Amino acid sequence: MAKRKRHLLRRPKHSKSLNQIPGTLTYVGNKESVETSLDVIDYNQEQYERFQSKSPQDAFKFVDEDRITWFNIDGLNNVEEIEKLGEYYELHPLVMEDIVNTGQRPKIEEYQDYLFIVAQMLYYKDGEIENEHISMIVGKNYVLTFQEANGDVFDPVRERIETGKGRIRSRSADYLMFALLDAIIDNYFLVIDDMSDRIEALEETLFTTQPSDDITLEIQELKRNILRIRRAVFPLREVIGRLEKIESDLIEEKTNNYIRDLYDHIVQISENIEIYREMIWGLMDMYMTTISNKMNEVMKVLTIMASIFIPLTFIAGIYGMNFEYIPELQWKYSYFVLWGVMIIIFIGMLYYFKRKKWL
Amino acid sequence: MAKRKRHLLRRPKHSKSLNQIPGTLTYVGNKESVETSLDVIDYNQEQYERFQSKSPQDAFKFVDEDRITWFNIDGLNNVEEIEKLGEYYELHPLVMEDIVNTGQRPKIEEYQDYLFIVAQMLYYKDGEIENEHISMIVGKNYVLTFQEANGDVFDPVRERIETGKGRIRSRSADYLMFALLDAIIDNYFLVIDDMSDRIEALEETLFTTQPSDDITLEIQELKRNILRIRRAVFPLREVIGRLEKIESDLIEEKTNNYIRDLYDHIVQISENIEIYREMIWGLMDMYMTTISNKMNEVMKVLTIMASIFIPLTFIAGIYGMNFEYIPELQWKYSYFVLWGVMIIIFIGMLYYFKRKKWL
Amino acid sequence: MAKRKRHLLRRPKHSKSLNQIPGTLTYVGNKESVETSLDVIDYNQEQYERFQSKSPQDAFKFVDEDRITWFNIDGLNNVEEIEKLGEYYELHPLVMEDIVNTGQRPKIEEYQDYLFIVAQMLYYKDGEIENEHISMIVGKNYVLTFQEANGDVFDPVRERIETGKGRIRSRSADYLMFALLDAIIDNYFLVIDDMSDRIEALEETLFTTQPSDDITLEIQELKRNILRIRRAVFPLREVIGRLEKIESDLIEEKTNNYIRDLYDHIVQISENIEIYREMIWGLMDMYMTTISNKMNEVMKVLTIMASIFIPLTFIAGIYGMNFEYIPELQWKYSYFVLWGVMIIIFIGMLYYFKRKKWL
Amino acid sequence: MAKRKRHLLRRPKHSKSLNQIPGTLTYVGNKESVETSLDVIDYNQEQYERFQSKSPQDAFKFVDEDRITWFNIDGLNNVEEIEKLGEYYELHPLVMEDIVNTGQRPKIEEYQDYLFIVAQMLYYKDGEIENEHISMIVGKNYVLTFQEANGDVFDPVRERIETGKGRIRSRSADYLMFALLDAIIDNYFLVIDDMSDRIEALEETLFTTQPSDDITLEIQELKRNILRIRRAVFPLREVIGRLEKIESDLIEEKTNNYIRDLYDHIVQISENIEIYREMIWGLMDMYMTTISNKMNEVMKVLTIMASIFIPLTFIAGIYGMNFEYIPELQWKYSYFVLWGVMIIIFIGMLYYFKRKKWL
Amino acid sequence: MAKRKRHLLRRPKHSKSLNQIPGTLTYVGNKESVETSLDVIDYNQEQYERFQSKSPQDAFKFVDEDRITWFNIDGLNNVEEIEKLGEYYELHPLVMEDIVNTGQRPKIEEYQDYLFIVAQMLYYKDGEIENEHISMIVGKNYVLTFQEANGDVFDPVRERIETGKGRIRSRSADYLMFALLDAIIDNYFLVIDDMSDRIEALEETLFTTQPSDDITLEIQELKRNILRIRRAVFPLREVIGRLEKIESDLIEEKTNNYIRDLYDHIVQISENIEIYREMIWGLMDMYMTTISNKMNEVMKVLTIMASIFIPLTFIAGIYGMNFEYIPELQWKYSYFVLWGVMIIIFIGMLYYFKRKKWL
Repeated sequence: MAKRKRHLLRRPKHSKSLNQIPGTLTYVGNKESVETSLDVIDYNQEQYERFQSKSPQDAFKFVDEDRITWFNIDGLNNVEEIEKLGEYYELHPLVMEDIVNTGQRPKIEEYQDYLFIVAQMLYYKDGEIENEHISMIVGKNYVLTFQEANGDVFDPVRERIETGKGRIRSRSADYLMFALLDAIIDNYFLVIDDMSDRIEALEETLFTTQPSDDITLEIQELKRNILRIRRAVFPLREVIGRLEKIESDLIEEKTNNYIRDLYDHIVQISENIEIYREMIWGLMDMYMTTISNKMNEVMKVLTIMASIFIPLTFIAGIYGMNFEYIPELQWKYSYFVLWGVMIIIFIGMLYYFKRKKWL
Repeated sequence: MAKRKRHLLRRPKHSKSLNQIPGTLTYVGNKESVETSLDVIDYNQEQYERFQSKSPQDAFKFVDEDRITWFNIDGLNNVEEIEKLGEYYELHPLVMEDIVNTGQRPKIEEYQDYLFIVAQMLYYKDGEIENEHISMIVGKNYVLTFQEANGDVFDPVRERIETGKGRIRSRSADYLMFALLDAIIDNYFLVIDDMSDRIEALEETLFTTQPSDDITLEIQELKRNILRIRRAVFPLREVIGRLEKIESDLIEEKTNNYIRDLYDHIVQISENIEIYREMIWGLMDMYMTTISNKMNEVMKVLTIMASIFIPLTFIAGIYGMNFEYIPELQWKYSYFVLWGVMIIIFIGMLYYFKRKKWL
Repeated sequence: MAKRKRHLLRRPKHSKSLNQIPGTLTYVGNKESVETSLDVIDYNQEQYERFQSKSPQDAFKFVDEDRITWFNIDGLNNVEEIEKLGEYYELHPLVMEDIVNTGQRPKIEEYQDYLFIVAQMLYYKDGEIENEHISMIVGKNYVLTFQEANGDVFDPVRERIETGKGRIRSRSADYLMFALLDAIIDNYFLVIDDMSDRIEALEETLFTTQPSDDITLEIQELKRNILRIRRAVFPLREVIGRLEKIESDLIEEKTNNYIRDLYDHIVQISENIEIYREMIWGLMDMYMTTISNKMNEVMKVLTIMASIFIPLTFIAGIYGMNFEYIPELQWKYSYFVLWGVMIIIFIGMLYYFKRKKWL
Repeated sequence: MAKRKRHLLRRPKHSKSLNQIPGTLTYVGNKESVETSLDVIDYNQEQYERFQSKSPQDAFKFVDEDRITWFNIDGLNNVEEIEKLGEYYELHPLVMEDIVNTGQRPKIEEYQDYLFIVAQMLYYKDGEIENEHISMIVGKNYVLTFQEANGDVFDPVRERIETGKGRIRSRSADYLMFALLDAIIDNYFLVIDDMSDRIEALEETLFTTQPSDDITLEIQELKRNILRIRRAVFPLREVIGRLEKIESDLIEEKTNNYIRDLYDHIVQISENIEIYREMIWGLMDMYMTTISNKMNEVMKVLTIMASIFIPLTFIAGIYGMNFEYIPELQWKYSYFVLWGVMIIIFIGMLYYFKRKKWL
Repeated sequence: MAKRKRHLLRRPKHSKSLNQIPGTLTYVGNKESVETSLDVIDYNQEQYERFQSKSPQDAFKFVDEDRITWFNIDGLNNVEEIEKLGEYYELHPLVMEDIVNTGQRPKIEEYQDYLFIVAQMLYYKDGEIENEHISMIVGKNYVLTFQEANGDVFDPVRERIETGKGRIRSRSADYLMFALLDAIIDNYFLVIDDMSDRIEALEETLFTTQPSDDITLEIQELKRNILRIRRAVFPLREVIGRLEKIESDLIEEKTNNYIRDLYDHIVQISENIEIYREMIWGLMDMYMTTISNKMNEVMKVLTIMASIFIPLTFIAGIYGMNFEYIPELQWKYSYFVLWGVMIIIFIGMLYYFKRKKWL
């Protein structure tokens, strides 16, 4: 059995470090080593500019009211820089706190001038699902995204903006929000497809290998993984559902169709998760029956061997006795007759077990 | 155990190919080889025309405002032709996308001039349930249906239109929609009846054959199948339920009774699915008890054989010892007396096991 | 194991024969041989008349506006006669269809001039629960009931009308409807009481007999039965619930108290069904533990026998060896000493197993 | 296994005897032998009178408009006397029927002049939970309570009235109702505490005794008991919940706080019931693992004994063979060397099993 | 197995001692020995005073209308002192009763001048979760907290008030309430993290140790613990949820954001609890499979030993027979040939079991 430490829920200790004063900013997570970096994309139908920096202040001069600005921050360690960004966009202190507290469950909060969305990205690491906290601020003409580590799930969106493919350049900030959420949800499909492959592989293993505790462990790991995925997806489903119904100037009428599409996707993912969950739970039962089948087989071998040879050994024992008067011992053909009898018993036994379908 | 690849959910990768730009048309499914073909039926109470083609444009000239037109497209590969149809009927880009993305869950969407319905057809292929994506556009006097492969579930409807049997020729497009949904749902009855037969057959097998991993596998396959059926039927139930309540000029008052009837049917199917599901889940438990019963039987044979012959062999062993002074050995009738003792032990043992009801 | 065919849900193929044109009348069920017969009771406070016939037309002349008329049709084969009745009372074609399609789940439908209620009667046949389709039309001063076979569950109601016992003669048609539904629901009590007896009997059997596949089968049959009962009762509960809330001229104010009473009863039945369901599901677990207990016992016998006699046989084997120089063999009392040793081992073993509580 | 008859739900046949005419009074229950007796307490702040009789008519003269009258009837056999009481207080016939039909589930019904409440008292009898039907009529200045048997759960309330302790004498009839319901619910605490003790005791037994069918039976009995308790408590919770919301002149504003308190209590009981239920269901699993553990132990003893002595016996058997030429037999020290070899094998085996932790 | 008494729900007998007169004050709990002590903190932005006493009356003179007063009472034995406090702040008798009755489930009650909140603190004691009853009165400018024992969960809040860190000194009483609830909920994170560690540790143990009843017991204890945690957390979630929606002058607008934050935390805890619950329930299944795996291994050892040596012993037995004429016995090399045969059988057997993967 592997010795590596298994974390039941890869819990980021608990969103807020204990006894922390509410409303103060401290990064809570397990990716302290990731350096904070900033990536700004500023675009409209005609123009496109991209800028990378370590400090938001360098970037503010690039921000143009007529263009849509997408700030992407990777790494949440450098709390001061994040705070500056928060001040620039006048974010609520509790929002700032939630951005750096990575244990948040997906949620949406409406503020006067912006929407605040928390989601979770999922990826595999050493065979275990990892959650990565993503938060998003959607304003009139800007989108801020905050990631714990430098992920690549948004790359296709960047490319589409750069090359001007699709509708994205001609739409407003809410469409960018949709595109980013769409990228996150598309990623879930990958993760649950992988889950499906692992379930199938395990089903295969169940029947072809000898029962071992490794299989139990793997089933348990699948359970843990599906529970983690569920924890990321189900609240996000509520978020998208509420996004569909929100009445805000920030969401244009025509973007609503796209959000509904998003909702369809996440409902589909949720349904698949539930199905996989049932399958995984079923694996344990399957495993029990295969173990029982194998034990049955072992017992049959034992029973057949013992049932055949124990009586024969008894017979041999009889004629190994040293009584002075055992008539059979003197007769010349006794030995051969006895062999005959034994062979008949042997064949009779085999026939009996054959008829019982144990052979 | 069969070596064939089992797909857990026969997933069409995931409705949308990853990183695809939202709103662009690409066929997503696993029936790429099916050639797109078009079948147009144009009818009213008096007239009936049928036309088959590879291109919708040939068909448009046949379309007559006074008649109801049913376009049926088999095969979703030829995206351009489908696009032309979409332009002709002014369909929303996202609708067009959903038509060719076959992983959609059943849904209904109301648009200004038409209803968009997605459903799933079910059929068996190599003992596994397959889902086939069907989408339907219902307009004022036309119905468009899109199928992945050339199915035959609509043939009875075609026949009724051709021969003018029943109400169908005298009613409007919404009744045609009802007739088509009715055909799909009727098909579900076949599928779940088949499921019922397989459950019964497996129950029978459980008791009559030796336990083997094949049975576990079959139960698992039934589970997968019922989960797939559920995934097709339950959302369609919501669809029909909403169809009942929709307030649209497209649905006539008198068609509502028929839709309610449809709803009754799909509720009934849903209930049966839940019952079959409980039965299938119960099969695993049943199987465990039969395995245990069989193991019990094996153990009894072993125990009886060992309990009878081990003591007897011990006795024989005693008189096979080479001690110089064993008084019994000299006595003339010892051997026969010993046989007597052994037979008494043997019969006593049999009686004991008989009384314990192990024999 | 019994060879008789078990039907999982005693499904009447599926309410509607496949590809049947919606709105046409064909009897769907498995009691084709039952001849249609008609029983008309016409009564008011003062008068009472009863009439039996094969054709409704003979009966129409008996119908008197001032009296309440109860048409009871047994057997749904003679579709034409039923159609005549439908025309006389101006029933909707879909209602007519539902009357003869026996797979319907219990439901209530309000029409202008009448209520349409579908329910299911339950009875045992060869140890399996059978459902019988009953439909009821309740109009201003008439009640029509349609049964698949000639049942006797309504006899007490007939008697009450005939003898004028209770309130029934002095009330209107809705009270008759109540009395008939009450008779059906009373019958459910009988069926679930019987279910309770069978559960208890099976519990008893579980402990007193050797494990066998018959018990697994019986548990499975109980499961099937309770699922069937549930399928009849739960939708009827909704029906009665809606009947309580319906605002219709057909239901008098003072009948409402009786309907509420009916609702109490069916809720009570539903609760019992859920309890029995839990008990039945628990039976499988109980059964598993009794099998395991029995196997444990078998194993103990084997282990005790083997543990005692295998070492003793070994000792006997030692002194059966033919080495030229085994000092013990020459000593005169060796044989007796050895017996002593063996008896001590034997008693020691027994004591050991006694202390382990295996004996 | 005990031979006593176990009743699954201690069903009072079914609230209404079959085919009984609705609205007629017949006692339905299993305590026919209890003689009906009447206990009247008439009190206000200043006065207190108590009167016991067999007939309500004797009591009516004691009833004083200015005082609160509590009629308590024990035993529901004497239907005529109960009927007289019903007439005196002008109760609805269906209420009268529900009073004597003891299978009713807890409910509340509002009438013009009074509230009708049905509850169930719980107590142990021969280790099984028994339900006793209690119904209560709460009017302007009277409370009628009807019990199947002479219980003592109301004694503390009687004492408080007599001695004038607490608020009860200074309050109106609704407070008396509260006090009585409070007494019933307090009693539930006793019953579920007892349940808790039994669960703990059984857990203890599970580990300390040999597996036996008695334990399975006891777990099953606990299941039955908890299901029965649930059946009494859950509907009463709804009753109290509705009582809280009822708008009736009969309930004073200031009594509402007490009813809310009652509701808190019954919610707490419901939660505990659910927890106990989970614990009881878990007992079966626990039991299975302890059986398996015990079987494992049995198998280990067998395997160790057989694995050690079967090879040794084989070796002894080798040198018991009668071949003319077996070189070892002639050598003088063979026997002693062989003993050495055997002891080494023996120790080796012990070490092997020790390392496998089977010893 | 440990002999210590396990309490299923550490029930404080039942919130109200049986037959107690409603509305009278008696401490109900199991911490009778804790002496009641009083700790008063009186503060505003500028001032801070702290006072400890045994009697509230000493403290009343310290109370200043312009400051926020936090009374904390540890130990609920001294009912008279608590009563004095209740009179001073004009608390409702039922509130007073709920403060000293420690079995209350978490709840919130709105009164004219104050809110009454009941919560439960959780901590470990001898490996079992203990609940401690906390009640809180929140008034215009005061907060009263009542604890059963002297806990330390509020210490960080005290420190923040004393040192003036964070917002707390500049806010009103409702913010203090938030800070205290926040401290309680933070504590839950610790408890469930600990739970997570124990689950992981047990998973580890499951595979590395021999099956024993101790593991079953530990799983059962985890179940009990998680059920207890759930019982404390789930109703508190409702409480916080209602607190969010309450319209009261006592809760300032700007505190609402903090309460929403609190709600997010408790929802997160609830979700984790549900996940842990599923994991714990899964442990029993895992345990069963590891037991079965271990038994399988035991059986294989037995079967291999018996299958190899029983036939060999039989062969040795054959040539131990004393027939006068056994031709093989005379031949000189018989013995060596036989050894050869036996070794071949031995190797053949090993190969057979190897191929079956039993070795």
